[in-house]
Amino acid sequence: MLNHSGYRGKSLAFLQKNNVRVGDVVKVIADSSYSGILMPRYEYSDDEHIVLKLKSGYNIGLEIDKIKIETESSTNMKKENLPQVQVDPKLPKLLLISTGGTIASRIDYRTGGVTPALTAAELNAAVPELGKIANIDTEVLFSEYSENLLPEHWKKIAERIDSCIRTEYKGIIVAHGTDTMQYTAAALSFALTGIPIPVALVGSQRSSDRPSSDAALNLISAAKFLVESNTSGIYVVMHNSINDDEVACHWGTRVRKNHTSRRNAFQTISGSPAYIVKNDSIEKNPQFNYVKREYTPRINFDTRIALVKYYPGLDPKIVDYIISSRYKAIIFEGTGLGHIGKIMYESVGKAKKKGLFMGMTSQCIDGMVSMTVYESGRDLLNLGIIPLFNMIPETALVKAMWALGNSKNTEEMEKLMKENIASEFSD
Amino acid sequence: MLNHSGYRGKSLAFLQKNNVRVGDVVKVIADSSYSGILMPRYEYSDDEHIVLKLKSGYNIGLEIDKIKIETESSTNMKKENLPQVQVDPKLPKLLLISTGGTIASRIDYRTGGVTPALTAAELNAAVPELGKIANIDTEVLFSEYSENLLPEHWKKIAERIDSCIRTEYKGIIVAHGTDTMQYTAAALSFALTGIPIPVALVGSQRSSDRPSSDAALNLISAAKFLVESNTSGIYVVMHNSINDDEVACHWGTRVRKNHTSRRNAFQTISGSPAYIVKNDSIEKNPQFNYVKREYTPRINFDTRIALVKYYPGLDPKIVDYIISSRYKAIIFEGTGLGHIGKIMYESVGKAKKKGLFMGMTSQCIDGMVSMTVYESGRDLLNLGIIPLFNMIPETALVKAMWALGNSKNTEEMEKLMKENIASEFSD
Repeated sequence: MLNHSGYRGKSLAFLQKNNVRVGDVVKVIADSSYSGILMPRYEYSDDEHIVLKLKSGYNIGLEIDKIKIETESSTNMKKENLPQVQVDPKLPKLLLISTGGTIASRIDYRTGGVTPALTAAELNAAVPELGKIANIDTEVLFSEYSENLLPEHWKKIAERIDSCIRTEYKGIIVAHGTDTMQYTAAALSFALTGIPIPVALVGSQRSSDRPSSDAALNLISAAKFLVESNTSGIYVVMHNSINDDEVACHWGTRVRKNHTSRRNAFQTISGSPAYIVKNDSIEKNPQFNYVKREYTPRINFDTRIALVKYYPGLDPKIVDYIISSRYKAIIFEGTGLGHIGKIMYESVGKAKKKGLFMGMTSQCIDGMVSMTVYESGRDLLNLGIIPLFNMIPETALVKAMWALGNSKNTEEMEKLMKENIASEFSD
Repeated sequence: MLNHSGYRGKSLAFLQKNNVRVGDVVKVIADSSYSGILMPRYEYSDDEHIVLKLKSGYNIGLEIDKIKIETESSTNMKKENLPQVQVDPKLPKLLLISTGGTIASRIDYRTGGVTPALTAAELNAAVPELGKIANIDTEVLFSEYSENLLPEHWKKIAERIDSCIRTEYKGIIVAHGTDTMQYTAAALSFALTGIPIPVALVGSQRSSDRPSSDAALNLISAAKFLVESNTSGIYVVMHNSINDDEVACHWGTRVRKNHTSRRNAFQTISGSPAYIVKNDSIEKNPQFNYVKREYTPRINFDTRIALVKYYPGLDPKIVDYIISSRYKAIIFEGTGLGHIGKIMYESVGKAKKKGLFMGMTSQCIDGMVSMTVYESGRDLLNLGIIPLFNMIPETALVKAMWALGNSKNTEEMEKLMKENIASEFSD
């Protein structure tokens, strides 16, 4: 099945009849003519289509009843004979941990497999500049699009990074899908508080075979940043503009993906990136600062937290359902300075009575929650909701999962939520 | 009780003993000395504090056991004798509908009442420049902080505006709290599709007595815009910078509150504001365009819609609860190009089977949902989720309430969701 990964029924028969395998470069005649690489399919796919990755990097689904297909060049299922990586003893060592995502997608379809096999040799062949910056070991921790990552994956990544502390690695690159990269960055920031080395989460918005790909520059910049910046902590390292000129290093608890497709989709909220990597320099933001702490890894997450975004027409019964279920805390994404409508007060009272922790963030995303300005805010304070400063809602959610996971009870959790653990809010 | 609105028990006794009434300017000796206006209190307040509005515009709660209070000047509970408004027959007529919020908050505490009483005389006394732009009638539709507004309020505002079409009013100002202004703007945009006159929702981020208040300039600019721009449709009219120099007119379905406190908190997503009102000119954005339609008011909203923001650790059971309840549709705030994790697929399948409409937006807020690029997106398309282009999630939610409210079934609703009704997405 490796040659037809994911195909079944009619589409599998079609491929076998035409002697085409996943990874082959094929020509397809449909309404017009397409040339591309036959991609593997996934569990929930039907059996009436095949998927081609076009040269543009985008995938297209084609109905087998309406097409003719022929192989242009067959995939080589054996590993290519890549040159052995030369180790330069004068350069520092980095570790690249691959978790999946677009950044690994070229290898993905070139080998025809679903698993991104990011060996050191392949990485160096793809981005030879890396070899001049550091000696990079690589390993595949898992290979999931980041929309499928869960708090249990955060834990695995954190544990692997923790095992590298006080080894020869000067820093760690985590190759990661961009969809939930900010959640993982926040999770690592809390779980590995005070980590003495720098960690760079790196992704790409366009797969590495496309001319507009940001993968290589993001990787090169991350390696430079880890080797040269002399900093520590968790960062997201992604394009700073739509040009290939600057890469931003965002502090892990203050970063958000604010565009679906742009290469500079990631932004530091309420401020500028911590570092900018340029062609020949790394510039530190003079305003950037973070709380320095002892390294105290606390690597647990408890998912009994619900994020509730308030909107006009939200039914309090949804909150009542959460209260009556297994949950221990609610993070609200309120409106404006941190409000939810009066219609929710009764439910909030019930949650308080049941001992749930309730924290308030703002769906405005930027700016401070301030619950003493208006009556609504003061009402909510009286009802027991805790304002969470200018924490990004997603960061507050992740922090709550972490705080509950590493506390004996919600009182202890509340204390952690109010403490500025990883510069997640401005005091 | 009018004189002590909202106070009860110990705090009421304290105020009566000291002969202080809501609206009075008082001096309070506590840890330090405060001068301010005694504010009314709300239903959920305790009876151990009083609330003072300081000259800074911010409110402070003070514990009665720890303070001394004395009246500096007593409120005049009768209406002030404001000069009669002069009608200039050469000027056009506008209607100002007040719904509440900070923009009415000066009147709020000056009279000592909870209700903002925005008479034409008071408005003209507060912002005399308005009298040179238009003859403005005023009316109070309701007076709620906007976090308390519900779809039933949207309906009332829309009905009142609809009743003004083909009258002498050249345009309508809706004074509105900023917390949920974008939801109301979207609701009016759909309910009053093709409205032949311009409507400006106006709010303020700082109450009108503060030196930094944006209320007057926003009102003046809205009046100018309505009188001079020769446009139609629903707009949000708010500061364009933190200076008092430019006011932006944002198209009602493309605007979002992106900061908790800044005067220029509102931004047009994926573009620039439709118009900029400067001191001596109104500039139209040359890129701005909107679908022109016949006026077809359809003023119903159905709240059987849930907004579900996806995040790692979201329990599918919350979605299962929604499916098993009264809901007819789910709007997802997915990650990246419009994804939710595999862990949700089973629930999504159940929702589809039960006939729920499911639409996909992105929590990135900016950019297009594009569900054919990755396997995850194609899986979700196969499972029946409809991509909602670059609709802002909050706009998509409001549109779904409107579309369901004006459809016989979810098929008809789906057709409306895919149609670009009020330039809510880029085709």
